[in-house]
Amino acid sequence: MAGSTYGELFRITTWGESHGAGLGVVIDGCPAGLVIDEAHIEKYMSRRKPGGIKYSTPRKEADKVNILSGVFEGRSTGTPISMVVYNENQKSRDYSEIASYYRPGHADYTFDAKYGFRDYRGGGRSSGRETLGRVAAGAVAGLMLEELGISVTAYTKSIGPVTIDYNKCDEKNIMSSPVYMPDPDASEQAAKYLDKQMENKNSAGGIVECIVRGLPSGIGDPVFDKLDAGIAKAIMSIGAVKGVEIGDGFAVAKSTGLDNNDNFQIKDGKIAKSTNHSGGVLGGISDGSELVIRAAFKPTPSIASSQRTVNRQGEEIDVEIKGRHDPVIVPRAVVVVEAMTALTIADMLLKGMGSTMEGVKKFYK
Amino acid sequence: MAGSTYGELFRITTWGESHGAGLGVVIDGCPAGLVIDEAHIEKYMSRRKPGGIKYSTPRKEADKVNILSGVFEGRSTGTPISMVVYNENQKSRDYSEIASYYRPGHADYTFDAKYGFRDYRGGGRSSGRETLGRVAAGAVAGLMLEELGISVTAYTKSIGPVTIDYNKCDEKNIMSSPVYMPDPDASEQAAKYLDKQMENKNSAGGIVECIVRGLPSGIGDPVFDKLDAGIAKAIMSIGAVKGVEIGDGFAVAKSTGLDNNDNFQIKDGKIAKSTNHSGGVLGGISDGSELVIRAAFKPTPSIASSQRTVNRQGEEIDVEIKGRHDPVIVPRAVVVVEAMTALTIADMLLKGMGSTMEGVKKFYK
Amino acid sequence: MAGSTYGELFRITTWGESHGAGLGVVIDGCPAGLVIDEAHIEKYMSRRKPGGIKYSTPRKEADKVNILSGVFEGRSTGTPISMVVYNENQKSRDYSEIASYYRPGHADYTFDAKYGFRDYRGGGRSSGRETLGRVAAGAVAGLMLEELGISVTAYTKSIGPVTIDYNKCDEKNIMSSPVYMPDPDASEQAAKYLDKQMENKNSAGGIVECIVRGLPSGIGDPVFDKLDAGIAKAIMSIGAVKGVEIGDGFAVAKSTGLDNNDNFQIKDGKIAKSTNHSGGVLGGISDGSELVIRAAFKPTPSIASSQRTVNRQGEEIDVEIKGRHDPVIVPRAVVVVEAMTALTIADMLLKGMGSTMEGVKKFYK
Amino acid sequence: MAGSTYGELFRITTWGESHGAGLGVVIDGCPAGLVIDEAHIEKYMSRRKPGGIKYSTPRKEADKVNILSGVFEGRSTGTPISMVVYNENQKSRDYSEIASYYRPGHADYTFDAKYGFRDYRGGGRSSGRETLGRVAAGAVAGLMLEELGISVTAYTKSIGPVTIDYNKCDEKNIMSSPVYMPDPDASEQAAKYLDKQMENKNSAGGIVECIVRGLPSGIGDPVFDKLDAGIAKAIMSIGAVKGVEIGDGFAVAKSTGLDNNDNFQIKDGKIAKSTNHSGGVLGGISDGSELVIRAAFKPTPSIASSQRTVNRQGEEIDVEIKGRHDPVIVPRAVVVVEAMTALTIADMLLKGMGSTMEGVKKFYK
Repeated sequence: MAGSTYGELFRITTWGESHGAGLGVVIDGCPAGLVIDEAHIEKYMSRRKPGGIKYSTPRKEADKVNILSGVFEGRSTGTPISMVVYNENQKSRDYSEIASYYRPGHADYTFDAKYGFRDYRGGGRSSGRETLGRVAAGAVAGLMLEELGISVTAYTKSIGPVTIDYNKCDEKNIMSSPVYMPDPDASEQAAKYLDKQMENKNSAGGIVECIVRGLPSGIGDPVFDKLDAGIAKAIMSIGAVKGVEIGDGFAVAKSTGLDNNDNFQIKDGKIAKSTNHSGGVLGGISDGSELVIRAAFKPTPSIASSQRTVNRQGEEIDVEIKGRHDPVIVPRAVVVVEAMTALTIADMLLKGMGSTMEGVKKFYK
Repeated sequence: MAGSTYGELFRITTWGESHGAGLGVVIDGCPAGLVIDEAHIEKYMSRRKPGGIKYSTPRKEADKVNILSGVFEGRSTGTPISMVVYNENQKSRDYSEIASYYRPGHADYTFDAKYGFRDYRGGGRSSGRETLGRVAAGAVAGLMLEELGISVTAYTKSIGPVTIDYNKCDEKNIMSSPVYMPDPDASEQAAKYLDKQMENKNSAGGIVECIVRGLPSGIGDPVFDKLDAGIAKAIMSIGAVKGVEIGDGFAVAKSTGLDNNDNFQIKDGKIAKSTNHSGGVLGGISDGSELVIRAAFKPTPSIASSQRTVNRQGEEIDVEIKGRHDPVIVPRAVVVVEAMTALTIADMLLKGMGSTMEGVKKFYK
Repeated sequence: MAGSTYGELFRITTWGESHGAGLGVVIDGCPAGLVIDEAHIEKYMSRRKPGGIKYSTPRKEADKVNILSGVFEGRSTGTPISMVVYNENQKSRDYSEIASYYRPGHADYTFDAKYGFRDYRGGGRSSGRETLGRVAAGAVAGLMLEELGISVTAYTKSIGPVTIDYNKCDEKNIMSSPVYMPDPDASEQAAKYLDKQMENKNSAGGIVECIVRGLPSGIGDPVFDKLDAGIAKAIMSIGAVKGVEIGDGFAVAKSTGLDNNDNFQIKDGKIAKSTNHSGGVLGGISDGSELVIRAAFKPTPSIASSQRTVNRQGEEIDVEIKGRHDPVIVPRAVVVVEAMTALTIADMLLKGMGSTMEGVKKFYK
Repeated sequence: MAGSTYGELFRITTWGESHGAGLGVVIDGCPAGLVIDEAHIEKYMSRRKPGGIKYSTPRKEADKVNILSGVFEGRSTGTPISMVVYNENQKSRDYSEIASYYRPGHADYTFDAKYGFRDYRGGGRSSGRETLGRVAAGAVAGLMLEELGISVTAYTKSIGPVTIDYNKCDEKNIMSSPVYMPDPDASEQAAKYLDKQMENKNSAGGIVECIVRGLPSGIGDPVFDKLDAGIAKAIMSIGAVKGVEIGDGFAVAKSTGLDNNDNFQIKDGKIAKSTNHSGGVLGGISDGSELVIRAAFKPTPSIASSQRTVNRQGEEIDVEIKGRHDPVIVPRAVVVVEAMTALTIADMLLKGMGSTMEGVKKFYK
């Protein structure tokens, strides 16, 4: 039923369809006194905007965030922060065709199965525009993390067959790549691969990687609410994600204990790990190393090629999805991964504050 | 803080440490009138029992489940079902050594970082025995699914370099393989690989695959509480899991829209998909196909080889983990994956009942 | 921290301050297919509107509800319903005085204690306007209950010393009374009492009573989530409420078992109670009788009389609250009580659907 | 469905029936490092024990609490604390009569309506013994509050017509009164009143009052999760409670703004209120004064007098409830009110820790 709320203490609720009046998010539980930098939020938003990069749809979306509550004199008040992006230029396009059949790879069929009918205009609630609220809220969570010295950085690790090794890349190149891939050569190859897919009326998949730095050790809970379990849910809840990895991820299946265990050592007078196969988490709790997350995105399901499907009358038909569509989801999803990660960590940081009596007493006595 | 509760309507809370009085689980929200077949629960439990298969520790654990409440005349009453496994033979072994340093790959360090101290006996709450409660509760969820015609089947897909193709296997071989791998040849190769790891005082990782059949379409919610997002959290919350995939998983990153989209067709008079790259879920909602889940498990961190680490005095030392340990986690984790999957689906089924006014009216009018 | 969300399956999140851009609510979990009658919502809203009755402030508030999402072709889609009331005519009034001291009986001081600062314009989040979102959402919950044959009716039971006996009243008189008191004589007396309070620069308290009819037996959970416990939280969460009663309420303290127990009898071939001291709930579960709820509201804290208080400089001062204020909160709160009751029952109805295997099977097989 | 869990960060889950193997509670989220004083827990438990006072059933219940997990070397580890009271002496008494009809004032009928059948032995889950888990957990919450300088004190304010004015009583007399009424004269009158009820095969109701001292201002959230709303739910969730008041409670309905508003003043250099009509909470947030709570308990429904009811065959019959029963619920409920209050406050204290960026930074930087 419900299910549009994420987080427990730093909690967001998103709403809105692609072709309704707008889309938005309510953040409840943002600590009071956070400086809300609207320019920072806009920067986040612009990264998911179509048209910002070559390989996205030329539709122009302003996607201006309006803050309706919870901010007073530039700072959060501790009460809900409501943010809205109004939909513009919703032409009264004819959706009768799209309403009549089930697009392969889309949620048209499952929405009908669940709810009996659906808002078929532009994908309704399963549209990529649903992420607008996530990104706006993630930007606010990011501001909170920034004040605590924690950074969240995501980028494109692979598109189709083109993969980069982040350790050999310069992070500064992320934003200058049209596909947010920090290796200029690989970025160019990826671009060529995408051109080829578009020629073929086809699309590509890829991988987003995300790194969290500055996270203190001790964050996350040891059983069901493990840091990595929370991250897995957050990332898998992004449309089109089909896999999530932490640290070495699926490669651990072929590794051995000797290779995969990270030894502890003393570094600069502190306990640290000599390697980071664990990706920053042990037993569900942050271990002080970088948190390393990867997400696999499926190829854009909307393609111009002819596909076989079924219409509402139960007839098999051939369809070609009209309109222009991104040949790859990954670049615009980079900031969504960053947002969901920031939201998860903000929530877990707040939850972690009452872990010890020593901490509680420091607070209340 | 909290975090030992999983699920919202079919909700479990686990408790207990490896070397305390016992471990247990409370199921709250199991529908009334479910026939509680204790033999079924014991069968589930015996699959995670060490000593049940060759490649697990020879420690003998009875792991008898005691049902303390919520069952009357053989059926669930709708009130909490409390189940306990009492720990037996807790020898007053000397834990002073293990208390003194941080084992690589274990949660010793992160527990201290979070809570200030830890119950160091046998891993405390991060012991593998923590899964006892999950499995007992999962067995009950499994009984509920069975009555609805839904089955959950997990098995070992790979151990180290040895991988099977499930479509070429006979499911009946799962239980006869000492490592729950339904391909007899592969099972034997895996056994040899494990023998080698043990000789080398080393350990192996692997992959568990899980298939859910009979799940109706329409289960799961479209945004944060997607069916696959819930599964991802459930599976990643199992200790030692470092990656989760749905359907084609990470392979989608190199696929294309044409290859990855599943076409709809009419089969036996019903809408069905011609392929199942999606792994049974579209837009976070079940699509009527088999739900396909994979989890990557890291190699057992406890190994007999010498490892470098740090003690509580902040000195770097060499340690060898004493005692006998499983050379691989995967076989005993198979039933845990099954349990967490069953629990997630039971919860989502209950949540899905109020999705439409038509359904609500059928119920209350 | 968070705390602006109410309900679990039929879940609302409210946001907004008295003098920001607007106030609103997101309903998540409304079953799909509910006919959303906007006129019904407006009727609900107009009942809490100031100026609608004589004994409320003459400020004119349009309070027009805008539905931004979740409704398609007149019916709920199952996805979040976002509703907004934009604030109009926010004059750039000078709030420096009100910002400088703590009004007796208001939350100025406690907001500062909690958050370090506050949005002092018009009471911010603790303004009576916070209930706009509750009422809009309650109207939708009311529509759902109506389709199930359940009605929720609230009215003024007392204002100051003037009390009515509902059993001797005609329900049709509720809406014709300027204070929503269905006894015309009492209504007139209450009016006179309020006139006197206003002359004296003082204010009055009162009691709202609410009756739910048509509720099936079996709703509510037996331990912490009792039907009456949920109602108690819902009602006490309305600003100015200081007491909640179910059925005979505090009178039970002086009653005896023989007098207070409701006997069961057979009526029209069904099991029914011969009396209703319990107010419709036994052991936290609805018993098929009318659910009877009462809430005590404190007198409006904003009064024109001089009062002693403290300013932010820590000086004791005398203040007179300027502007016109309602001499009593009760009449405008009637619909808020109705809304919170409807929301609680809608949520509990959805939660109750999975109580038995018989019900679950009827649904899924 | 579920509903046996209370609290979000300091969270408890209770289980168990009156005549099953036992009853218990799991506390999840108790901060690590709390000294768990078992003698303190036993003292709490003994206050709800029947036979401890004259006006309770002579059944002997040992009610020894067994701590099964979460405590190591005398301190909480931060992981779940599981506590069990095993049921003893469950004679295989004949329950066929009680199973055959619906006792007036009991939950027999509503359990059947909800679940289709019930564990009829001794009231099952709706037995007064269900509070065992609440009290054990409340004792632990009380230990936490004690370390923070917060005390929770409950006592009997009235039994039938006998009422005390706490301000004229000596708190030391609470424990010496057989009915926990700190006024010796009133206590004696109440005893006589109870004797009379027992002679008449009848029972009495009463009121419990509870006072929390030392609570800092700023606790509780301003909208749905108000401090008083949480308390109202907690208290109303205790079986037999029909009304809850905060501060002046229902008396505010007849008061005026001038009388009911508490003026602020400077006392000992700090902001304080000159009176406490609000009962310690303004706008849902604690105001630094004593928190004052009252709960009305209905008369014990089990009485020896003949009553009219219905059996499962749908016939009207006369019944006399056999066995000895407390003539009043109040005295044994005093500690339950204390427990539920302590649990609510512990949870709200933990939730309040992340209210401001200043607090979050103090913690993490």
